[in-house]
Amino acid sequence: MELWYSEFQTKDLSLSARVKETLYVGKSDFQEIAVLDTFEFGRMLALDGVFQTSIFDEFIYHEMIAHVPMFVHPNPRNVLIIGGGDGGTAREVVRHPGVERVEMVEIDGAVVDVCKKFLPEISTVLINGHDKFHLKIGDGIDHMAQAEDNYDVIIVDCSDPIGPGEGLFTSKFYADCYRALKADGLFVQQTESPFYHQSLLKRLRKDIENIFPITRTYLAQIPLYPGGTHCFTVGSKKYDPLAVDTATLPDLKTRYWNKELQKSAFALPTFVQELFK
Amino acid sequence: MELWYSEFQTKDLSLSARVKETLYVGKSDFQEIAVLDTFEFGRMLALDGVFQTSIFDEFIYHEMIAHVPMFVHPNPRNVLIIGGGDGGTAREVVRHPGVERVEMVEIDGAVVDVCKKFLPEISTVLINGHDKFHLKIGDGIDHMAQAEDNYDVIIVDCSDPIGPGEGLFTSKFYADCYRALKADGLFVQQTESPFYHQSLLKRLRKDIENIFPITRTYLAQIPLYPGGTHCFTVGSKKYDPLAVDTATLPDLKTRYWNKELQKSAFALPTFVQELFK
Repeated sequence: MELWYSEFQTKDLSLSARVKETLYVGKSDFQEIAVLDTFEFGRMLALDGVFQTSIFDEFIYHEMIAHVPMFVHPNPRNVLIIGGGDGGTAREVVRHPGVERVEMVEIDGAVVDVCKKFLPEISTVLINGHDKFHLKIGDGIDHMAQAEDNYDVIIVDCSDPIGPGEGLFTSKFYADCYRALKADGLFVQQTESPFYHQSLLKRLRKDIENIFPITRTYLAQIPLYPGGTHCFTVGSKKYDPLAVDTATLPDLKTRYWNKELQKSAFALPTFVQELFK
Repeated sequence: MELWYSEFQTKDLSLSARVKETLYVGKSDFQEIAVLDTFEFGRMLALDGVFQTSIFDEFIYHEMIAHVPMFVHPNPRNVLIIGGGDGGTAREVVRHPGVERVEMVEIDGAVVDVCKKFLPEISTVLINGHDKFHLKIGDGIDHMAQAEDNYDVIIVDCSDPIGPGEGLFTSKFYADCYRALKADGLFVQQTESPFYHQSLLKRLRKDIENIFPITRTYLAQIPLYPGGTHCFTVGSKKYDPLAVDTATLPDLKTRYWNKELQKSAFALPTFVQELFK
């Protein structure tokens, strides 16, 4: 018997992965959580039927959402992760030696528990703990509404803007991020596909531009996500991602990110540049 | 009734597009040719069941396989395209004003005929002709075996290394390309996915390195192809793609390629760099 799992990337396009084994399916207070072991992607997490991460390509998303903003800021000490329940982003952030404190606010404790059990390579920091790392199970939107003048870098590692992630894609949330950042702080958010979520991307980019003096979008190639290319957008109070002197960056053992990509990831195809005009 | 067309990108992964209409299915002397009209990609060409190009994203492949090598050479006048039966690469190459002659050698005349009928936006040069453009229906491998010291740029716009394209992925063919190029010439070939064809890519890269003094690989993001990221590899006798002074390049109206991408497309993720060590 062959078992296949299909995700509708759009209503007219689907990606199907052959499944070795269904490891977990359950319903939390917020969403359906599934972990499948697949032939092509290895073990993978789906929330409400949408692929979130896989053992095959998780390093790309996590290295790029963490290291790029962490290296735009010259000295990030206090970092906040909103979402990121699998722990992959935290795993990368704690590798930066100057970091003093990493808070993570994940709404769904069940995601954390499932990832610790089934995706331990990703959840290392959740499993083993880390002296810099502090996990809070709670609503990231509420957390941000109260935070002030506190963080150097905020990383919004959220799911799609449907379900629990919806409120993380609003002007109100971006204004809260702005207020929660120190005078030279910056934030980054995953902002979906440049091919299949153009109107969303365009709106988010404008919303962020309306609040932050510097807004930049960069790309990473992630086969698990629709179209295989994913956007990340930075809102920054002071530091311009294009002004980083990459020669001064420390060496970091990685599988995707490197000093060249730190900047070249911001080189956008013409059709993406035109979305932002 | 919903009709879906599924391509097995690997034996354990498939991409499915919902079909509006099957416009053409036929068998040539070389392969099965199909044109489908799909909701997500528009009209698209499949050869032996493998997606080749679509109205939705053809500009990415064609701009990147043409303009990148054409701008690495400071003055390409005599250009050869091997394959490229849909005409998209020729359409981009003839836009370079310094070009005097563009030869295209496509093995399958039926592909040319089908594309002219069903993909006229791509096949403009095939339909309308062009004073610089010369089409020969024939075997690219035979053509190369006889060519000598003739071309500035050779573009190998071929299908996968299964079926008629197989002989275009060999050391013998690369040596023929070398001989067919002038003393400062260069060639480029599409070299598949960095995620799903790693052993092939590794072998090709080594074969090209063994023949050309300068070998460089670049990437483009193409949702139609497996994993959404595609490789192109340049073998060059004299000009290094990384040494191009992009500030001096002319402006060109494009939808994907631009002066920044001319160089940043060569910035490779660490796992790709490691394949080539």
